[in-house]
Amino acid sequence: MSKANLFYAQSGGVTAVINASACGVVETARRYPDRIGTVFAGRNGIVGALREELIDTGKESAEAIAALRHTPAGAFGSCRYKLKSYRENTREYDRLVEVFRAHDIRYFLYNGGGDSQDTANKIAQLSVEQGFPITCIGVPKTVDNDLPITDNCPGFGSVAKYVAVSIREAGLDVASMCESSTKVFVMEVMGRHAGWIAGAAGLASESGSEPPHIILFPEVTFDREKFLNRVKECVGEYGYCAIVVSEGVKGPDGRFLSEAGGTDAFGHAQLGGVAPMIADMVKQELGYKYHWAVADYLQRAARHIASATDVEQAYAVGRAAVEFAMAGKNAVMPAIVRGDGEEYSWSIGEAALADVANVEKKMPPSYITSDGFHITEAARAYFAPLIHGEDYPTYRDGMPQYARLKRVLAEKKLPRFQ
Amino acid sequence: MSKANLFYAQSGGVTAVINASACGVVETARRYPDRIGTVFAGRNGIVGALREELIDTGKESAEAIAALRHTPAGAFGSCRYKLKSYRENTREYDRLVEVFRAHDIRYFLYNGGGDSQDTANKIAQLSVEQGFPITCIGVPKTVDNDLPITDNCPGFGSVAKYVAVSIREAGLDVASMCESSTKVFVMEVMGRHAGWIAGAAGLASESGSEPPHIILFPEVTFDREKFLNRVKECVGEYGYCAIVVSEGVKGPDGRFLSEAGGTDAFGHAQLGGVAPMIADMVKQELGYKYHWAVADYLQRAARHIASATDVEQAYAVGRAAVEFAMAGKNAVMPAIVRGDGEEYSWSIGEAALADVANVEKKMPPSYITSDGFHITEAARAYFAPLIHGEDYPTYRDGMPQYARLKRVLAEKKLPRFQ
Repeated sequence: MSKANLFYAQSGGVTAVINASACGVVETARRYPDRIGTVFAGRNGIVGALREELIDTGKESAEAIAALRHTPAGAFGSCRYKLKSYRENTREYDRLVEVFRAHDIRYFLYNGGGDSQDTANKIAQLSVEQGFPITCIGVPKTVDNDLPITDNCPGFGSVAKYVAVSIREAGLDVASMCESSTKVFVMEVMGRHAGWIAGAAGLASESGSEPPHIILFPEVTFDREKFLNRVKECVGEYGYCAIVVSEGVKGPDGRFLSEAGGTDAFGHAQLGGVAPMIADMVKQELGYKYHWAVADYLQRAARHIASATDVEQAYAVGRAAVEFAMAGKNAVMPAIVRGDGEEYSWSIGEAALADVANVEKKMPPSYITSDGFHITEAARAYFAPLIHGEDYPTYRDGMPQYARLKRVLAEKKLPRFQ
Repeated sequence: MSKANLFYAQSGGVTAVINASACGVVETARRYPDRIGTVFAGRNGIVGALREELIDTGKESAEAIAALRHTPAGAFGSCRYKLKSYRENTREYDRLVEVFRAHDIRYFLYNGGGDSQDTANKIAQLSVEQGFPITCIGVPKTVDNDLPITDNCPGFGSVAKYVAVSIREAGLDVASMCESSTKVFVMEVMGRHAGWIAGAAGLASESGSEPPHIILFPEVTFDREKFLNRVKECVGEYGYCAIVVSEGVKGPDGRFLSEAGGTDAFGHAQLGGVAPMIADMVKQELGYKYHWAVADYLQRAARHIASATDVEQAYAVGRAAVEFAMAGKNAVMPAIVRGDGEEYSWSIGEAALADVANVEKKMPPSYITSDGFHITEAARAYFAPLIHGEDYPTYRDGMPQYARLKRVLAEKKLPRFQ
């Protein structure tokens, strides 16, 4: 097989370990000098391909590439940009193939969630039709853990660890002070459509008395009265109540609670955030002093407390994607396969992009306790190994040292894309 | 000198390392078996003394006490409870001395901020008047870093490290996505009256292009127009803008930009929610897509990313407090003294409680850049050593293992305090 170039792009919301996948891609590609020429990375994801802004990773030192393994966020830039269907958007697909052709790119590795796998799949088909077949391999990534087939998504384990550690720590804080101060603490976490992240926070409580006492899932319609009763019960029993709320929790009308637009104690409109809304509700109805936190990007960028398992898996799917391409596979994605044994083990399997694209994996109902406020043993068995192990970045002067890339763009060969 | 018991209490908002001070107190006291009998800890702070709820730390194993060194929050419980002046509140002071007398407590170590040092100082005086002299030693603690004399307060270095690491990580996230998504990120941090914590976040930016780009201090009156111009400038120059805002930032009318409602036991307004307000302002005026985070308790409980320097100093002030008592000192507090050399060094000095009580140390104006939006080199030189070093807790199954104490109460000897 002749030598060709490889294009790698990061897509959608970034994670603490997506760069570990990038590291796996580039380091593995460098082991095939006879078959892979330049590894290009899209500047700001697929937008970089459309604009012919191709970062030449060959200009980065082995040390800089190795540092990606412990660097959070998207080192080459990512984007929220979903290509429309080919019929609606012929121009963009044609442009991609044109850019790939101009730079002799015959391998396209797309690191993202369901939308991205869909795009990669389409390009695989389309490039054949256009007489310039491109091997398209997906690299799974999403903190939301909502891709099908793969047992879990790289990126999820680290955010899971962050939220579990954070609520354990903040819970101890509230427990210390609850006699005379804050009695209710609300921590908002990500997960617009599925409660995977909120559920993982449940790992922090090893018994009913330990925080979090209540988890509010997008999968469970918010029941105000039942919730307030449970809060009161917890404060009565434990002296305080630590709550984890998913940003995606919905009311009986099917709308996000955060969109309901309530007002605070002073009649000011709430400026978004379901945590302050829940906290205020508790204050209004039960009178407890509260505090709330919204972790937002801190949770998905928290490389300092990444799960070692997650880092290894993120690297492994990057490496496997290149190996799949070298093995002549196409339109597939490495998937994480959980072993059957009692002790956790995992290996890399294979999923067809067509089966991954645009399918959202929900959390099984069996993961949520019958009262709707916590996780079951089945959920614990699933979540626990994913946060296993610590993988600390290196520090200098007290601060984590993250990769600083040169990001040199390859020379353009085509007219500007309008 | 005859043998007597010791009473230790945690006071006010807890920190990631106040238990390291407790560890220093108990471990050191155990080295004086001829002079110190039982080390009691107040259940929920000074309230435990009033209620005669005295935790007998002698029932805790050496391992459990050692684990306090890496356990966040207040293991014995803390409280927000300020004794009024003796004239207003004779009963409570009398009760304290009565409880101390009943349990032969002649050493009182109070681990807290300025209010607590004031209380300790009063008890030192009063107990003499009442014919039962009690040696009162303060143990400094506050994330706010606002105690005078001591170069810094144990608890501050760890929250400083947390906010600097968090904004570096979240900043990388925003930088990755800003081309097509979020352009402005706002992180709210603690610091009601002084910008120490917000300022420490500035350590994350080693050059002007690195986050945070803007810091909003309580010391600088918020100027809406100037702020919005600076945001626009950052987005123009760097593609995005990462902002750290102190909860205590005030408008031209002298009021906090945001008040969550209510006041605490000390009459301080309960704050929270300036981040969404600032973010919304940016959206309204400049139209940028935004995200915001409120770290709240996560920042002060984050033992998982504690500063090793902070942990050592917290332990050292606990140890020194016992040694001061053994040396016959009274109404003093160990203070951290910074060495003069070019390389950072510190030692334990001594401050009179009378000089510490109720004095709030502000951040020097020379620490804030002339535009009011960042920290100076002088500030960096002050902050940098305080976040130095990592001191990770031990993990089991991916979760940090924090001390679980028995908290056995000593038998009561007095009638209930009404």
